[in-house]
Parts: sequence; C-alpha cells; structure tokens
Amino acid sequence: MIQVGIIGGAGYTAGELIRLLIHHREVKINFVYSTSNAGNKISDIHQDLIGEIDQKFSDKINTDVDVLFLCLGHGNSKTFLENNHFSSATKIIDLSNDFRLLNDRVFQGKEFVYGLPELNLEAIKTANYIANPGCFATTIQLALLPLAKHDLLQSDIHVNAVTGATGAGTSLSKTTHYTWRDNNFSYYKPFTHQHLGEINQSLTQLQTSFSNEVNFMPNRGNFSRGIFATAYSKFEGTLEEAKHIYLDFYKDAKFTFLSDVELHLKQVVNTNKCLVHLHKHNDKLLISSITDNLLKGASGQAIHNMNLMYGFEESEGLNLKATYF
Amino acid sequence: MIQVGIIGGAGYTAGELIRLLIHHREVKINFVYSTSNAGNKISDIHQDLIGEIDQKFSDKINTDVDVLFLCLGHGNSKTFLENNHFSSATKIIDLSNDFRLLNDRVFQGKEFVYGLPELNLEAIKTANYIANPGCFATTIQLALLPLAKHDLLQSDIHVNAVTGATGAGTSLSKTTHYTWRDNNFSYYKPFTHQHLGEINQSLTQLQTSFSNEVNFMPNRGNFSRGIFATAYSKFEGTLEEAKHIYLDFYKDAKFTFLSDVELHLKQVVNTNKCLVHLHKHNDKLLISSITDNLLKGASGQAIHNMNLMYGFEESEGLNLKATYF
Amino acid sequence: MIQVGIIGGAGYTAGELIRLLIHHREVKINFVYSTSNAGNKISDIHQDLIGEIDQKFSDKINTDVDVLFLCLGHGNSKTFLENNHFSSATKIIDLSNDFRLLNDRVFQGKEFVYGLPELNLEAIKTANYIANPGCFATTIQLALLPLAKHDLLQSDIHVNAVTGATGAGTSLSKTTHYTWRDNNFSYYKPFTHQHLGEINQSLTQLQTSFSNEVNFMPNRGNFSRGIFATAYSKFEGTLEEAKHIYLDFYKDAKFTFLSDVELHLKQVVNTNKCLVHLHKHNDKLLISSITDNLLKGASGQAIHNMNLMYGFEESEGLNLKATYF
Amino acid sequence: MIQVGIIGGAGYTAGELIRLLIHHREVKINFVYSTSNAGNKISDIHQDLIGEIDQKFSDKINTDVDVLFLCLGHGNSKTFLENNHFSSATKIIDLSNDFRLLNDRVFQGKEFVYGLPELNLEAIKTANYIANPGCFATTIQLALLPLAKHDLLQSDIHVNAVTGATGAGTSLSKTTHYTWRDNNFSYYKPFTHQHLGEINQSLTQLQTSFSNEVNFMPNRGNFSRGIFATAYSKFEGTLEEAKHIYLDFYKDAKFTFLSDVELHLKQVVNTNKCLVHLHKHNDKLLISSITDNLLKGASGQAIHNMNLMYGFEESEGLNLKATYF
Repeated sequence: MIQVGIIGGAGYTAGELIRLLIHHREVKINFVYSTSNAGNKISDIHQDLIGEIDQKFSDKINTDVDVLFLCLGHGNSKTFLENNHFSSATKIIDLSNDFRLLNDRVFQGKEFVYGLPELNLEAIKTANYIANPGCFATTIQLALLPLAKHDLLQSDIHVNAVTGATGAGTSLSKTTHYTWRDNNFSYYKPFTHQHLGEINQSLTQLQTSFSNEVNFMPNRGNFSRGIFATAYSKFEGTLEEAKHIYLDFYKDAKFTFLSDVELHLKQVVNTNKCLVHLHKHNDKLLISSITDNLLKGASGQAIHNMNLMYGFEESEGLNLKATYF
Repeated sequence: MIQVGIIGGAGYTAGELIRLLIHHREVKINFVYSTSNAGNKISDIHQDLIGEIDQKFSDKINTDVDVLFLCLGHGNSKTFLENNHFSSATKIIDLSNDFRLLNDRVFQGKEFVYGLPELNLEAIKTANYIANPGCFATTIQLALLPLAKHDLLQSDIHVNAVTGATGAGTSLSKTTHYTWRDNNFSYYKPFTHQHLGEINQSLTQLQTSFSNEVNFMPNRGNFSRGIFATAYSKFEGTLEEAKHIYLDFYKDAKFTFLSDVELHLKQVVNTNKCLVHLHKHNDKLLISSITDNLLKGASGQAIHNMNLMYGFEESEGLNLKATYF
Repeated sequence: MIQVGIIGGAGYTAGELIRLLIHHREVKINFVYSTSNAGNKISDIHQDLIGEIDQKFSDKINTDVDVLFLCLGHGNSKTFLENNHFSSATKIIDLSNDFRLLNDRVFQGKEFVYGLPELNLEAIKTANYIANPGCFATTIQLALLPLAKHDLLQSDIHVNAVTGATGAGTSLSKTTHYTWRDNNFSYYKPFTHQHLGEINQSLTQLQTSFSNEVNFMPNRGNFSRGIFATAYSKFEGTLEEAKHIYLDFYKDAKFTFLSDVELHLKQVVNTNKCLVHLHKHNDKLLISSITDNLLKGASGQAIHNMNLMYGFEESEGLNLKATYF
Repeated sequence: MIQVGIIGGAGYTAGELIRLLIHHREVKINFVYSTSNAGNKISDIHQDLIGEIDQKFSDKINTDVDVLFLCLGHGNSKTFLENNHFSSATKIIDLSNDFRLLNDRVFQGKEFVYGLPELNLEAIKTANYIANPGCFATTIQLALLPLAKHDLLQSDIHVNAVTGATGAGTSLSKTTHYTWRDNNFSYYKPFTHQHLGEINQSLTQLQTSFSNEVNFMPNRGNFSRGIFATAYSKFEGTLEEAKHIYLDFYKDAKFTFLSDVELHLKQVVNTNKCLVHLHKHNDKLLISSITDNLLKGASGQAIHNMNLMYGFEESEGLNLKATYF
C-alpha cells in the first residue's frame, strides 16, 4: 500500500480522485488538503461518499507521502511547490496545465513527463513527475495521434468539441447557473483554447514536420460530464487503411478503443475510456472521439499514470461502470 | 397608453414583465430601474430581447408613472417605498411577499389587495395597490379554493409540489449550479415554506371554519420553469360533484381551466395558465395543478392584475404560446 | 379574416402552427386534418391548448380555404396534392422539402417560391405557392447569405450545427428515447445532410460563381428546441467590414438581427427570431447563428410567409415571448 | 468462479447486471440470452461496453449454470420457468414481480425468498431462489422498516416519490420521448402503484399489527436514473430517538446509511447505496430515502443477493463510483 496526498481537495478533480482511490487496492489516502474545509468531513463536501469514508480534510501536509496529486487551479501548482517541500522520493502528478508545455517541463530540477499513456507509455513508467493532460487535449490528441505517427496530417484540421459543465470548475458563474445552461448551447474561445498548445506539441512529437492549423471550436453543452469531439482533415487513403492505423496504434491501449459504430457521448460517461470512430467522406477522414472530462480527461488518467509509475495493474481502480443512461 | 415603471429590473420577474409588456398594446415602459445596470441596454442582461428593445436601465425613477411594478427581494419593497415617494395616482403592483398577509396589507395608508384574480376579482378591479401572490401559493390555492368555497376542506391536506430553478432567483448558489441540479432532485423547507401563510389565509377567507393542517412538501426539480403540485384530502362526494364544483368556480376564469386528463408540467410552461385536474380514490380527492412560476406565479399574474385594474381586456399581453416541447 | 386549413395536424409543425394561429388576428382555422385523430379534440393531442381551442381534428378537407399549410413528411406533399384538388385561389405553404429545389419548383402548373424572406422578400409577396425552408437550411443560410451577396465566399466553409430532439419528429426512435438522449451528444449524416441542397442553391443564387464546399456536420443535442450553428471561412476584410455587410443585409429584416455579443441558444427558443454574431480570428470569419427549429425554422416562418403574401403586418402572430430560462 | 446466465439480456436491468458482473471477481458470465439479438455482440446493444466484452447474445440456454438471473417483463418469469428446466443446483434470482408476494412465493416447488438484505439477511444467505424487490418498494421500505420493527407505524403514511425514465423500461412510449420528458414532471398511478403490495407485506412482517394506509404518489421526473422518496407519519418520540432506531437497524447494512444532512438524488446515482435522512416537525417524522432504481432497486441488489447466497464478500462487484455530477 502506498500513501497518497491530495492537494485542493474540494474541487471536482480531487473529488473524483477520492472516489476512485477509496476502492484502489494498492493505495491509502494519507491526507486530503483543503484549507477552506479543514476539519470538515470529506463526505460533507463530496456527499455521495457518505458511508464510504470517515476521513476529514486537513490543513496539514505530509511531505513524505509516496504520491502527491495536485488538483489546483492553473498557475497555482508552481506556487504550491515553491512554498511546500516534499521528500525527494515523493512522486508528483499535477492535474493543472503548469508543466505540460516543453518550456515548463523542468521545475525545481524536477522533470515532468506529459502523462498521456497512449503517447508516452515508457517514459511514464519511469517518471517521478507527471504533467497530466487537459481534458480537451486528451480527447483531441487521441483522435489525431495515430495519423501524426504516420506523417498523415497533411492539411488543416477542423475540430469541434463540446464539453459538460464540470469542465468549467466548481465556481459559480453565469454560464454554470442552471437556468442559463439548461437546454442551452454556446461556444467559447473560438480558435484560441489554451489546450491547443498541448495538442500541437504532441502532434509535432510524432510528426515533426507538422505545421498545419488545428482549427478548434470548443462548445458548452447542457450536460454535466463528458467531451464529444469531431475532427476532420484531408486523407488520401481508404477507410480500411485508416482503421488499420488506429487499431495498430491502440492495440495495447487499456482504455482507448476503436468503435465500428458511430459514437454517442454517454458510452464513456463515468468511465476512464476513450472511444474513437472513423468515417471517410470523399477525400476527408472524420474522426470522432469521446471521453469523460473528469476521468480519462483528468483524475482517471492521473491514476492510470500512477499505476504505470508503480507497476500496478494498469486498470487497477479504473474498472468503472458507465452510467450510460 | 399608460406609462409603467419597473423596479429591480435585472431579475427574473422583471425580465418577464419586460418580455410581456413590450407586446402589450395599452402600455409603454417608461423606465426600468436597476442601479447595478444603470446605463446598460436592457438587452445586455435580458439577451433574448436583442432586436426588440433599445431602452436602457436607468437609475432615475419617474414618480408619476401610472403603474409601478416592484420586483425586489422579499422585505425590500417596504424599504423602497419608504425611500421613494410616488404620485398618489400611481398604482403599485408588488411582486414580493411584503404586503400579502393581512397584517401587512396597509402600508403608508395604501391598502393592498391580494391579487389572485380567481379569488378577489372585484376587489382587484378597484384596487390601487396589489400584493401579487407567490408562485407556490398561487398554484396550491387554485387547487384548493373551490373546495374551501363550499366548506369542504374537512381534514388534513397533503401537498407535494416541485418547482424549477428559476424559483430560487438569479443569484448563484450551490443548488442552482448546473452540475448540482442537472438530473437531481431534493426537497427543502419541509412543512414550513413561507407561502403557507398566504395559502391558509385565502382558504380561511372562503371557509372561515378552516382549521386543518396543510402539510406542504416543496421540492427542487431539475428544470428551469414551472410548478407541479398535488394535493389530497378526504372528500365524501363523488368525482362528478367535485368536477361540478371546480367547473363552476372557474367558469369565468380567463387562465385557469379544469382538465379531464392527467396533467404534465409543460402544458403551461411559458404561459399564464393554470390547469387543474381531479381524481378520486376511495375517500380521497386528489387535485393536481400546474403553473409557470414566473408567469401565472409572478409576472403574468401581475399584468393580469394591471389589466383588471384598468379595464383592459383580461388577456391583453398574455396570449402566450406554450413552449410545450 | 382568411380561412386556413392544416394538413397533418398531429405533428410538431402543425401543432406550432395551431399555437400561433389561434392568436393571429387575421386568420381563422377552418380545419385541421388528421386521419388518425379525426374526431378527437385538438387539445387531446396538443395538450397545452386545453382551455384555448375546442375544435376537433377532421378527416374532411375544405378545398376552398384561402391558405393551406402542408405539414406532411418529406415526399408526401406531392402525393397529397395529386390526390386532393384545391381551389385555384387557395394559396399553399408546404413545410416539407418537396418543392424547395429548383428542379421541384413547378408542380401541377403551380410555381413554388422558396420562402426565405431574407432572400426572396418580393417574390414571396406575390407568390401563391411557398416552399418553406428547412430548419438547418434557414439557420445556415442566414449565417452565409450576406457574404454570398458580395461574392465573398471564396474558400471552403466549415459548418457545425446542433439541433434539438424536435428536429427528429414525433415518431419514437432510439435516439429520441429520453434515457438515450438525456445528457448525451452525437453527430449524424456527416457532410451529407439533405439541407445542403437548399443551402448551396441559395448561396449560388446570390453568388453565381460559388463553387466551394460547405462542410456541414449536424449534431443531436440533449435539448428539445433550437439550432446553434457556427460557420467559418477565409475572409480578407476586417470585422467592421463584415459587420457592415451583415447590418446592411438585415437592415429591413423583421426577425433576423446582428448581435454584438456572443450567442447562446436560448436567446431565440420559442421565438421566430434569428440572431447572428460575427467574430474575426486571423484570416477567418466565424459566423454563428441561432434559431428555433420549429418556428423560424418551420411554422413561424410559414406564417411570416403568409403575412407577406397577404400584406398583413409582418410580425402579426409572431411577437413571441422567448422562454429564455 | 461461478457460472451465471442472464435471461432477457437487452433490457436495462440485464445491461446493468452485465456491467457489474464483468468486473466481479467470483463470476463468469456463461451466457446472455436474447432471442431478438441472438448472434449480435453484447456491445452492439450495450454500447458503453465496447472494448470490455466480446461475448455475443445467445438463443441457447445452459441449464447447468450456477446462477440464473431473470430480467423479464412482469408476468414472464413464471412462463419462462415453465418452458425451461434448469438443474436443481441452479440458483435463481428473479428481477420481476412474479414471486414477491406471499401467495406467489412457492412455484414448481421452489421457495422464493424476498431479497431485501436489510430485512431478510439470514434467509437470503441460505436461499436458492430469490424474488428481487422492486425499485420503489426498496426505497420506500428502507425509509419505513426501522419504525415498523418497533411497532411505531401508528397512523397513516404519506409517501411521495419520483423516479427517472429508466423506471419505465426500454420500450418507446409517449412519456419516454425526449421532447415530452425534457423539463417535464407528472404523476402516475396515484395510490395504486403495484409496489404497494410488497411494501405493505414487509411492513406487516415486522409490525404484525400494521393496518394503516400507505398513501403513495409516484411521479415521473425528467432524469434518467434514481428514486427520491419522502415519507411522513405521526411519531411521538424525539428526533434523537428516531435516529437511534435507524442507526441500530442499519448498523450492519453494507449499502444503507443514515445521513445527517438533507439528501439530494445524485448522491446515490450509479451506486448500490441507499441513503436515509430523518427530520422531525411537530408531531411528524419525515423520512427521505434515495436509491438508484437500476442498482439498489434492481441489478445491484440482485448481485448483493448472489454475494450473500454464496458467501462472497458482500460488496464484491458493488464498490461503485457515483456519477454525482
């Protein structure tokens, strides 16, 4: 049993980590740090956990835990690590975007590995510090990486993706008010979403010549969880060739699968899976992909990374029942 | 054309008033008062009105308007009227609960009439000051008043009602966050909801002997608009007798109708109607009733009251298309 | 008062026509034809109309009505007109796609005009037969026509649009089952939706040289009403130039407006409006547009066409209150 | 590893059984019987299972399996067992209502035990045949049984409960059409729901003198999963006394817990838990309880029963992550 600590314990991703870790057979939650909730029971905030966990939030940090999960707002992980010093043996998995880009990968002498198992499996296994990918970034990369591996991204890419309200975090805002969001739809940050950095970086990692544009339109959907993404670009091969490329790329993947049938979001909601589907129309290949933004797009992937770092069974704690309906 | 002013213009009920009044053929909106939004276009806040209204919010009040609608939080109408003095010719329709109860009906020498047209039609026609009923109170009274008129409320009454998220107002709170409310359900204020005062008062107005208990369980539903209420009590007559009582009570009502078939909420959403249905089981009569909490339960009823006070056609501005699906 | 008949009265679009026409001051509903519901009250099917209409569905047709609305499934309007012969004075407004394309515009000697008022205003005013546009087609054309008018569609166009469940009609199917659709998202008919024919035809009407590709990705959203569309393409001018073009194109439009702020779907739900917003990013112009698929995208536009054909006030019967929340 | 078979494999409850059993460490799914889907992959119907199960539906039955789960429509289990004969060693867990009432408990010499673990723990452990309780019945009994055990149900009980659309089964119907159910609410079967039989029977099992009325109002909510129930009745003790009774009754329960704070439905959605909360108002005790209708109210409880019958760890396969948001 390894000991883990969670920083920023009242948010969505910390909550999901706790939900997953209480049933993980190799892990004990050592502390859940939340200054605003210190002394309160974890189940006072994450109220579905009543009857399952008696632990309380703490304002104390154990700097000797085996694994530290950082569930802080973007930009706050660096500050936290500057102000709190952990054992050199403590492995860190950061869920923010602080260490994802190449320029940010080394901090305090710690080398962070971009924790997308489908891309960096071997590097993750030996890593001590993980920059856990963003939710849109995960979903869109898993749609495009197989093509990049074969240098097949040869023209502009058009991506449209819709995310649930949990994507906006727990804070209250106009667009997460129920009366606004209910039966509504809107876009935001057209062509400029911050996850484009990660996406382009990973595509270039596999296809060094990649220089086309990823036109990314993010949307707010009127649901709570999940990301549905479509991407299309020119593709000269046949659908069968494309399927072969994807099946091969994901042949050892534990959570990413090619679907022969068209996708709908709820196939993956409340699971750590990503499903990908391919469709050819004239000279275009349409790739759709779906994930749960809080699991495969955040906390589930974080635990997957931990499992890989420790040599645990990859799916330990992640054999989740989809909500589906 | 009469001139009307609206106080508290950024909230739900003010927004609904504006939506209705811009198409009312006897009314001109003189000003919409909102200190926090003064100078902004009304359509910046009520964004469905783009293309329909150019007017701006004002921090000036015209104290000579013909009608003043008060859309303030409960408790704030009295304060507002203490600080702002209107022409003695200005009629006031207050949407808060400040003047609904008998003890609160006279204020600054103004006599407020409880503005439920199905109960107080003639008094409303000659009133200068209206206390507009609460949304739950409207819905539940319309289910029970016909029985009270005939002294037929002779045992305890069991009421269960569910309201949409607009019932909680525009302010951000945990239970109006989309991720909380989506696909969720809960109760609140069991047996003690503040509308019980109005309800008991009106029942006693018609059935002076009424002394039984109204057990009222309010619930939060995962929808934005509308109230679905069921009420049951002992009733010795037949279903036909009950129907006769209700049909007679509502024979001249412009917006309340008895339905022969079981109800579902969306029949009245985005309308000023109330539908009522009766069902007899053994010795119990079950009455269900549905309204849109922001229209028949607030702004629509306010305009209905204004129409009655001025002798306008009762349904002027209120022939609304249901959303239905 | 003109007399109108409605064919196919149990579906969504017929229901919306009835909801609108009962409050239209120039119209009387002469009959609503539905073989499957003949003899039943209209309010038995369209149950929000309880208290508002006593009329019954009929299996008789009055071939002398002034206006006939055809609300039949695609392909069935032609068959219906072959089997039923109306007065030569009867104007016909067909809501199916039977007469929208140039090759289908003349039938039985009747010349159908494509009923998009923003495109064909004068022709509609003198028309006797209207092919009412499709819902996606309306929304996407209103996003693109101003550019086409100025020959500014000079590269491929990328359109993503999401529609509510009413877009799929009243029939029961897997993807309209509540448990499937709730909190779900999916695409369908990628690049091949049948409305592309209308869209390309209208773009070519204004920009005869138009030969680029409209890449259209339709999606199923988990809401009931409305279409949210985004379209982008290369555009060399400035945002101000684009706004000028759109403002000019829509300067006389009664229901289509340019919004300075980003859109969200509920701004137009339950109205006959279309809102359009422009955004420039590098060399791309992003146009978003929103409509209610059953109103501006179907029955509301049909009544708008009727108003134009008869010289009624354009907005008669169409001053609708948005549901908004 | 025991071998299990599932009959009626395309419905909701069979789907949930499969989702749970593929991760159950003591069980192998031997066959999933569905005549209409025979030969198709299970993941073609339960499409969230892509990547997790390759098995196909079968029209063959293995009559030697260790456990048989019957997921047939009410009334069809008896017929099925008449036409198909299983090994005397095969344990049967029936999810229909065919064997729940005392008069139906013995069939073909098989004695069925009512499988509510909180009520019949010891009998379940030694049972070979289980009548799995209904979803409303489970939720309401867990609210009332602790009082019944102490003969404290001494006056009429008023129950209001709302269920999600999965409660209506997979078949298409008007009230499960998305456009009908979205943002809607309605009641059905007032005072006469078929689960009242089970409820009264269990209450009488613990409180033999019980003869009061359970007034049960079932409602259809606009969500997919879960039941939220409230029940109130006269109670002369204090809230503390009530809590003591409930805590004692559930002290060994693996899935039912008393909550100190008010409940909201999503605390248990996608879990096998039941949460119960108590509130005292004057002379009334209000008990609220929540379950997931397909898990604690169906398939999860069925597996719990299987675990008890075989002496497996009670929570094996049932440590489920709530969806929560």
